[in-house]
Amino acid sequence: MFNVKPVASEFRVAIQKVIDQKTKPPGALGRLEELAFHLALITGPSKIELKKPVMLVFAADHGIAEEGVSIAPSEVTGQMVMNFLNGGAAINCFCQASDMEIEVIDAGILKPISDSRLISQSLGPGTANFVHSSAMNIEQVEKGISLGAGVVYRRHESCSNVFGFGEMGIGNTSSASALMSAVTGIAAEECVGRGTGIDDVTYQKKLELIEHGLAKHRTDMVDVKQMLAAVGGFEIVQMVGAMLAAAECGSIIMVDGFIATTAALIASKIAPDALGYMIFCHQSEESGHHKLLAFLDVKPLLSLNMRLGEGTGAALALPLLKAAQAFYNDMASFSSAGIEAV
Amino acid sequence: MFNVKPVASEFRVAIQKVIDQKTKPPGALGRLEELAFHLALITGPSKIELKKPVMLVFAADHGIAEEGVSIAPSEVTGQMVMNFLNGGAAINCFCQASDMEIEVIDAGILKPISDSRLISQSLGPGTANFVHSSAMNIEQVEKGISLGAGVVYRRHESCSNVFGFGEMGIGNTSSASALMSAVTGIAAEECVGRGTGIDDVTYQKKLELIEHGLAKHRTDMVDVKQMLAAVGGFEIVQMVGAMLAAAECGSIIMVDGFIATTAALIASKIAPDALGYMIFCHQSEESGHHKLLAFLDVKPLLSLNMRLGEGTGAALALPLLKAAQAFYNDMASFSSAGIEAV
Repeated sequence: MFNVKPVASEFRVAIQKVIDQKTKPPGALGRLEELAFHLALITGPSKIELKKPVMLVFAADHGIAEEGVSIAPSEVTGQMVMNFLNGGAAINCFCQASDMEIEVIDAGILKPISDSRLISQSLGPGTANFVHSSAMNIEQVEKGISLGAGVVYRRHESCSNVFGFGEMGIGNTSSASALMSAVTGIAAEECVGRGTGIDDVTYQKKLELIEHGLAKHRTDMVDVKQMLAAVGGFEIVQMVGAMLAAAECGSIIMVDGFIATTAALIASKIAPDALGYMIFCHQSEESGHHKLLAFLDVKPLLSLNMRLGEGTGAALALPLLKAAQAFYNDMASFSSAGIEAV
Repeated sequence: MFNVKPVASEFRVAIQKVIDQKTKPPGALGRLEELAFHLALITGPSKIELKKPVMLVFAADHGIAEEGVSIAPSEVTGQMVMNFLNGGAAINCFCQASDMEIEVIDAGILKPISDSRLISQSLGPGTANFVHSSAMNIEQVEKGISLGAGVVYRRHESCSNVFGFGEMGIGNTSSASALMSAVTGIAAEECVGRGTGIDDVTYQKKLELIEHGLAKHRTDMVDVKQMLAAVGGFEIVQMVGAMLAAAECGSIIMVDGFIATTAALIASKIAPDALGYMIFCHQSEESGHHKLLAFLDVKPLLSLNMRLGEGTGAALALPLLKAAQAFYNDMASFSSAGIEAV
């Protein structure tokens, strides 16, 4: 379905040579060197090009929220979507600070919002509660992947090659935890966390509900699309499609926190080469996140103890990509600067 | 000498209230909330104001370099100063990416450079080798503190209130390690690291020379100014003065890596309230740095495995300050956005 090519490994030696000729001791820029290397692998060895970075915030509601597993009711999803559109949320502030456009997508919130600033491509008024039935059907999974991809294809046509991935959806850490456990085989208790801040009693209830849901759907979940149907979320499904499209377009995928990383995990199961286009931006406070990052064998750029989602970690990481670009493209070499190589 | 006032603690409650009213679960922005809190304490509770951020890069040479304790010869200091002036170094690229001005100061390099883009306020052609004699005399310490302060006062008059601190000086991790050990009482072997990348044999030699130097000057070093005279560096002395001036002006002090943190340590010994104006930006790979940060009981914003100095970690952290500013000043409150508080 998606034609994802591996990143251009044939340029590894050439890229490392560019970096090693810069006026600094070898390796002295640490992770910035690794980042520049990674970006040059994606956008080409002669020059890193970051074009029109855009943050995609996918929003949807979750049936499992009716169990009271979150600190806020489902209505807050739609309220926050309005906040995004009006420029008042954390992600708006961070995107403005990082000079990053923002696009908000209704992937399936409870009550549709009629607003021309919103990309309305709802898969339904929230998923079904996966404790009792499948969150969605397989047709919705396929449609969601296709709709998510469409957002990226359109932006790529207007020259964007950097995509941030964020989300909003009361209840979506429950869905992401269940997906993580189903895909990786890691026990649910290691995947389930406290979202934006539930207490011990609510945590225990959340864990039991997720374990119950996973047990109920176990025999149906033979591939990742069926896992998405069983316990997924509309915003997660659309993010998977959008990430696969971004990889297909040879673009940079900036992965935010736990939910976005779960989408990245699933995208990488559908097309393993997609992982090569992904920059993991922030180590979330959500407890399953570090285990998920370890499973993917990746290390995020930032660790700022945030647990908000929305794409906040990705927006904060964009300046590091720009710094890596500046150093790779513009920094003097020993020979051009007349400095004794060290 | 410096009239450093404590940051405005009377606004703590008001500042926390602003942060808690933002449209996010309490604490969900983690360290960004702490950073906004800190910045608001410095610039005032109603609005965080970051004005004309400027990176100050202090350069000087070190007598101890003649012992061969670095990967590069002293000549490289002057060559890198020319690279800074010509815009070709890592710090230039990062400052450009972060929209930060850069000012290069000759605090005492071996051979003076005649260039109008350079602030020439040399304390001499490099320090003396502190293994054999005092690095400088006490008059040079006083003069250096005053000259360093002057750079900040002039910039503050033209409205800057954010100062990044970086340095260049072959041999300066030796001086900084000796200062750290002298000031904190931590054993030299825990303060001495590998600079930009020396091997085991050179490391052992460096450690022994520093232990020798410390033992030689032990009885003379009864206060921090005498420690600066005995084992300091011209760029470190001028950074101490510049940091104290920035604190006196109520400005934000962005501290880069190991050398800059050593200067911050000494500034905080001269005026303990100066610490309240300091943002520690990057956890360097230099091995003594994490112990020094722990001694100061501070946690840096970034950890990117860099070991270059120049102010690179501070320049990379500036976008986080801008993001904290944007969220504190512009993010909607629950009441303004019509969202149910969580």
